[in-house]
Amino acid sequence: MIIVPEAAIAGLVTAADCYDAVEKVFASMAKRSAYNFPVIREAIGHADALYGFKSGFDRDSLTLGLKSGGFWPGNMARGLTNHQSTVFLFEADTGRCRAVVGGNLLTALRTAAASAISIQRLARKDARTIGMIGAGHQSAFQLRAALDQRPFEKVLGWNVDPSMLGRLEEVAAERGVAFEAVDLDRLGARSDVIVTITSSFAPILEAAQVRPGTHIACMGTDTKGKQEVEAALLGKASVFADEIAQSVSIGEAQHAVAAGLIDVGDIVEIGAVINGDHPGRTSAEEITIFDGTGVGLQDLAVASAAVSLALERGITVEVAF
Amino acid sequence: MIIVPEAAIAGLVTAADCYDAVEKVFASMAKRSAYNFPVIREAIGHADALYGFKSGFDRDSLTLGLKSGGFWPGNMARGLTNHQSTVFLFEADTGRCRAVVGGNLLTALRTAAASAISIQRLARKDARTIGMIGAGHQSAFQLRAALDQRPFEKVLGWNVDPSMLGRLEEVAAERGVAFEAVDLDRLGARSDVIVTITSSFAPILEAAQVRPGTHIACMGTDTKGKQEVEAALLGKASVFADEIAQSVSIGEAQHAVAAGLIDVGDIVEIGAVINGDHPGRTSAEEITIFDGTGVGLQDLAVASAAVSLALERGITVEVAF
Repeated sequence: MIIVPEAAIAGLVTAADCYDAVEKVFASMAKRSAYNFPVIREAIGHADALYGFKSGFDRDSLTLGLKSGGFWPGNMARGLTNHQSTVFLFEADTGRCRAVVGGNLLTALRTAAASAISIQRLARKDARTIGMIGAGHQSAFQLRAALDQRPFEKVLGWNVDPSMLGRLEEVAAERGVAFEAVDLDRLGARSDVIVTITSSFAPILEAAQVRPGTHIACMGTDTKGKQEVEAALLGKASVFADEIAQSVSIGEAQHAVAAGLIDVGDIVEIGAVINGDHPGRTSAEEITIFDGTGVGLQDLAVASAAVSLALERGITVEVAF
Repeated sequence: MIIVPEAAIAGLVTAADCYDAVEKVFASMAKRSAYNFPVIREAIGHADALYGFKSGFDRDSLTLGLKSGGFWPGNMARGLTNHQSTVFLFEADTGRCRAVVGGNLLTALRTAAASAISIQRLARKDARTIGMIGAGHQSAFQLRAALDQRPFEKVLGWNVDPSMLGRLEEVAAERGVAFEAVDLDRLGARSDVIVTITSSFAPILEAAQVRPGTHIACMGTDTKGKQEVEAALLGKASVFADEIAQSVSIGEAQHAVAAGLIDVGDIVEIGAVINGDHPGRTSAEEITIFDGTGVGLQDLAVASAAVSLALERGITVEVAF
């Protein structure tokens, strides 16, 4: 059994590795050669924790397994991150546990990869300004991966607590891109691409604030009740998702579907665009939305990449099991 | 992170350790301080494999995690057991992965512990003859654990393929107990305790073959459609189960409930008997049935015992994670 500890991931896996791994598995999902199993998510009644599993199988790469862990709100006080997860990969031919991989950084990277893929595939080629809504821990990962997808010249940032915007400013500075803290009207009026990465339970961005031709990646909504953008925005956009079933149940699209503004059948899997089975954006005026809900197969794909890279470099811990 | 490899389990964990661990968690379940999460079970469309998870949380012992693995019918040809599983334990206070434990032998032991507990708690004190229906790999574990529960003097065995009965005869011989291969009429007419451990999809033991006062542990039925005893037998018995929800959905009781012979409310959790909240057997003439479906918490309980024993003896592998 191969162990890739959490501490090894940062030196091992790049945003580009995760982009490739996630893009491949999105493609497999759309071809129906990879599918996610039902998600388990339980409030365990101890430490206010949410614990569960995301899992799946990719027949193309023979990647099988699960990510397990969850949200422990008291961890910060112990010097640990609140989100804790571990990925377990199984041999598809035998059912034996193949690898145990630290899942914390990988979760951040695979989430960033998903919005990056949507920008690469759906944003206008001439996109030069990116608006970021949300400036929490994950926002830095989203912005870093996004900046690789177009020659962006400006980052606009908004956060419910503006004092946190320094995080986005730092990432912009790393890449030599200008940063400006703005209100939502200005963010919508000036951005070619918008990434929302909040844990909001009420719409932040209104439909009227968004101009034609914008691509929006909604990355924060992963639970019933959460919402980042006005449902009407989905009604006037072309909507794409990582997994349609999750998009309409726990993703950003849940509200637009419930309000009758879009149908399940209106949502396109991003994998279909990757496979060339759907054209993606078809005009410069179209608003495109990617609803990134986060699926188990993304976790398995990036963990599998981490194992391959660790094996290549001879830095895995192997345990007789 | 602590690793307890499959190969270490045999020298580490006894049937008695598993009995204690499983009894405690059955008691916690009946007190509602432990519960199983929904089971995931998927035909993955590769290697004819069934793959999934059983998981749960015991608030009393702070045992959290899952067993993952499944059934790979081609493994035997590779020199591996067809059932493959690994248990992953998580720290309930932080969500970090605490231990990875080989789950193959533990699964056999925890299944045997469940029927042994039912015999200890529900069989007549004067039970001296045990009937075994089924002589596959798992039957030896069931019989060994059962023989510890009463001063049995005779083992009666039946199997669809009688040539396999040598397995039961060997276990009986280990304990100096007489063995006899019998037909089902004789098995029912002479046994005080009966354990069924088959993968049958049609009833084997008929209600008319069972005499008053018998305790029957039905251990083979863990899937919709499987059945080991005639549904009418449950109608005239007091029915106990590890978990009622599983008993009526995928356990032996599924058929009797569907036929209207018993109600869900007629089934008693074995944990209630362990806790003293239910008297268990109330007369020498009563037929008692234990429907052992197998729950994730059993797996976590015995894996946690394995970790404790490994730590006590200083034989764990610890990996920085």
